[in-house]
Amino acid sequence: METPHNDFMPFFKPKHIAIVGVARSEFRFGGMSFLQKYLEAGFPGKLYPINPKASEILGLPAYPNLASLPEVPDLAVVCVAAAHVPAVLEECGRIGLRHIHILTSGFNEVGTEEGRRLERQVASIAKEKGLLIIGPNCMGPYCPASHLTAWGAIPGASGPLGIISQSGSITQRLTEYAYSLGIGTEKAVSIGNATVLNSLDFLEFMGEDENIKVIAVYLEGLQEGGRFFDLARRIVPRKPIVLWKGGQTEVGARTAASHTGGMAGSQAIWEAVFRQTGVTPVSSLDEWMDAVMAFALLPRPRGRGVFIIGGGGGISVVYSDTCILEGLDVPAPSPAAMERLLQTVPQSGSIAGNPLDDWQTLVDASYFGNILELAYGEPQVGMVIVDRLIFRKAFHIPDIPDPTPQTIEQVKQKGHLKPTVFTVDSEGGDSDLALAGTNLRAQFCRAGLPAYPSVKRAARALMHLYRYSSRSGRS
Amino acid sequence: METPHNDFMPFFKPKHIAIVGVARSEFRFGGMSFLQKYLEAGFPGKLYPINPKASEILGLPAYPNLASLPEVPDLAVVCVAAAHVPAVLEECGRIGLRHIHILTSGFNEVGTEEGRRLERQVASIAKEKGLLIIGPNCMGPYCPASHLTAWGAIPGASGPLGIISQSGSITQRLTEYAYSLGIGTEKAVSIGNATVLNSLDFLEFMGEDENIKVIAVYLEGLQEGGRFFDLARRIVPRKPIVLWKGGQTEVGARTAASHTGGMAGSQAIWEAVFRQTGVTPVSSLDEWMDAVMAFALLPRPRGRGVFIIGGGGGISVVYSDTCILEGLDVPAPSPAAMERLLQTVPQSGSIAGNPLDDWQTLVDASYFGNILELAYGEPQVGMVIVDRLIFRKAFHIPDIPDPTPQTIEQVKQKGHLKPTVFTVDSEGGDSDLALAGTNLRAQFCRAGLPAYPSVKRAARALMHLYRYSSRSGRS
Repeated sequence: METPHNDFMPFFKPKHIAIVGVARSEFRFGGMSFLQKYLEAGFPGKLYPINPKASEILGLPAYPNLASLPEVPDLAVVCVAAAHVPAVLEECGRIGLRHIHILTSGFNEVGTEEGRRLERQVASIAKEKGLLIIGPNCMGPYCPASHLTAWGAIPGASGPLGIISQSGSITQRLTEYAYSLGIGTEKAVSIGNATVLNSLDFLEFMGEDENIKVIAVYLEGLQEGGRFFDLARRIVPRKPIVLWKGGQTEVGARTAASHTGGMAGSQAIWEAVFRQTGVTPVSSLDEWMDAVMAFALLPRPRGRGVFIIGGGGGISVVYSDTCILEGLDVPAPSPAAMERLLQTVPQSGSIAGNPLDDWQTLVDASYFGNILELAYGEPQVGMVIVDRLIFRKAFHIPDIPDPTPQTIEQVKQKGHLKPTVFTVDSEGGDSDLALAGTNLRAQFCRAGLPAYPSVKRAARALMHLYRYSSRSGRS
Repeated sequence: METPHNDFMPFFKPKHIAIVGVARSEFRFGGMSFLQKYLEAGFPGKLYPINPKASEILGLPAYPNLASLPEVPDLAVVCVAAAHVPAVLEECGRIGLRHIHILTSGFNEVGTEEGRRLERQVASIAKEKGLLIIGPNCMGPYCPASHLTAWGAIPGASGPLGIISQSGSITQRLTEYAYSLGIGTEKAVSIGNATVLNSLDFLEFMGEDENIKVIAVYLEGLQEGGRFFDLARRIVPRKPIVLWKGGQTEVGARTAASHTGGMAGSQAIWEAVFRQTGVTPVSSLDEWMDAVMAFALLPRPRGRGVFIIGGGGGISVVYSDTCILEGLDVPAPSPAAMERLLQTVPQSGSIAGNPLDDWQTLVDASYFGNILELAYGEPQVGMVIVDRLIFRKAFHIPDIPDPTPQTIEQVKQKGHLKPTVFTVDSEGGDSDLALAGTNLRAQFCRAGLPAYPSVKRAARALMHLYRYSSRSGRS
């Protein structure tokens, strides 16, 4: 697209919205659920439901068609059956409504001649009438600041994240995931079949959006490889792009074709692209969120050495393995630091070193603060992982007040000098443990300190952060 | 050890136990907490607390030393400080008490000359007096059938699992984890420094224990490589050995040395050992539990092709990638199966194929049963993954009764012909979601159907199962 990017603003900050195709009675996914969500989220502009057989829907006046509206809205959400979409687009063209989100599916992705024909029609009407179209077959734009939250938490929270995705369900999951961890979304867009506007149009747009600090992209296929390459090279030095590539394998690619009708491309090419652009590659929802959280909340590391503060025997052995296998270093403490550790770490049942296995860090926040200071003072240490346990009866822990608030305070007091993350493993099939772990991680995250459910996930997120920082010269 | 293995039974099924070194007043980890746990678990034999300064502890008569006991117990748990351990062992020798668990730490693992000297003393007294010793520096034996549960859930549950571990905390985590998922433990042992009895002595013992169907081992180091090799070759054809090797990296190995004083060995050698013996290698607690659950609950697969039944757009694309990258196949449906799918799978918003993306499988158990039957009938399909969603408001799901019990029933009705597992992803920082997911997974697991928190983890567990089955000729 050669459209100037400020031309995309009506998608995310529309004044008024027409919802074309709202079933009158039933509560179901489609125009009705979008209308309900906009109302629930308190969208401040006018909402125009279009239904030729209704005079009122959810207390709002309904209109038979776009032409009968009292004004031209600046966004249309099209929810009518696929066969009727071309006629709606023609009508948009006639009244000068250029920004359109087509929710409807039944185009290229179904693999029928009829589907392909309809999608070609969408493309040609858009071209002829100069329409800007998101979709079809997608969830469209999302912008909490505009109360435009058609999915997930209502009203959602604004924040540093921008999301571009070829999957509606994945977009929804990531916005919700980030929201639960206290990370807001500035703008998200689910682009579906990308018949008119594609991922790169929105990548260019979000690259220039000053409110967006991290761009998360889920992509199955791509038509314009060279353009992606140029855009990524331009954007990455200013903000990280965390990219999850679906259809990495042949079978995944086969499924992608049925999903959004695109081609997935060769994994070898993608690997070269990641290397040359500095785009951060991830391969699961969790890894995506983990990296986004690190980029959104942490300062840039100056080295790949990690100091691990924990408590619990054999677990420390495994933590070293895990970090090393993810590409980090686990440097031995300097002689001076080792001397200090030996003065306070109990000889029996603990291990003075890196990883540090010292129960006192779990129960005594001020002792923890001293250890953290020691870690920050080590020149070989670029980042810190703090492992916390959910106390259980079996551990014979004294009954003490929850040390979490003071522990968080210590990281802030010591200046959060080096990227510092927490890990709380609460996997174990036990619902009390799962709940306590989720809550404890959320407590850290909402205080602005990333917390992960395992050292493996923390280590990978830190490695992504380190790679980005060392490349972009921001370290 | 050349001891006959039935000689280990007093460790797991002792008639009476002496606990040497029980602090009188304070509740703390050590002799006192072990005594409390045995009482709480309803250990049916006599418990003899030894403390020269007490006449009664927790309502039980206390004795000044082993020699003053009214009878010779068949197990001693030694909890006195390291320096006093040799004297206790001498006393054991004098009264003919041969089975000893030394809980105390402060030996080789602390790296001091004194620690090493004490450990050498333990070894030489054991040799001289013919003592069988677990430890020092460990949690010792665990056997729910004997109410001998010194850690974790009380009283624990008996089941198909045997555990041998060089880490007390890891042993505890795995027994609790398995218990929460409805998988009981026949015997577990935390061996610590393994001065006298080592992992291999217990591997040989558990290999012959008919009640144990799966052996889970956490190992940091090993002295007798050849013996491990021979044992594994003998045991693996009869039951799987799932081995987590701590100290895989140089730093991990350095930490292992501080942990239990052993040497970790070369990773290259270990890889060859895994290949040649058929031992299943894992590298985290989760992967360990996931594999154990698959081995404990599933029939053996006849092929590596997996059919994925799910619902939710882009997610299916990613599921294919994930399974393929773990080594499984995701075969396209046969023409006959595809024809059947196309008759019932909605054209719009769903994907007929493998992975199958069809919302109806989530809400209609009898429809799900038909799809399952179709999958079982496909010759290229060896295993089935069923992805379930935690319904959320955003999904616009009709308010229906929970389909889970009927869904479980369908797997059983269709004969569970091929290994069938469930996946319920509930990660997202949201505590309601985490709780609902943990509970749903537990519901499947307790019905005897493995459930995993992600397709990645399910795929890896199934790949371990497939590799074992195709090797051992049990497929």
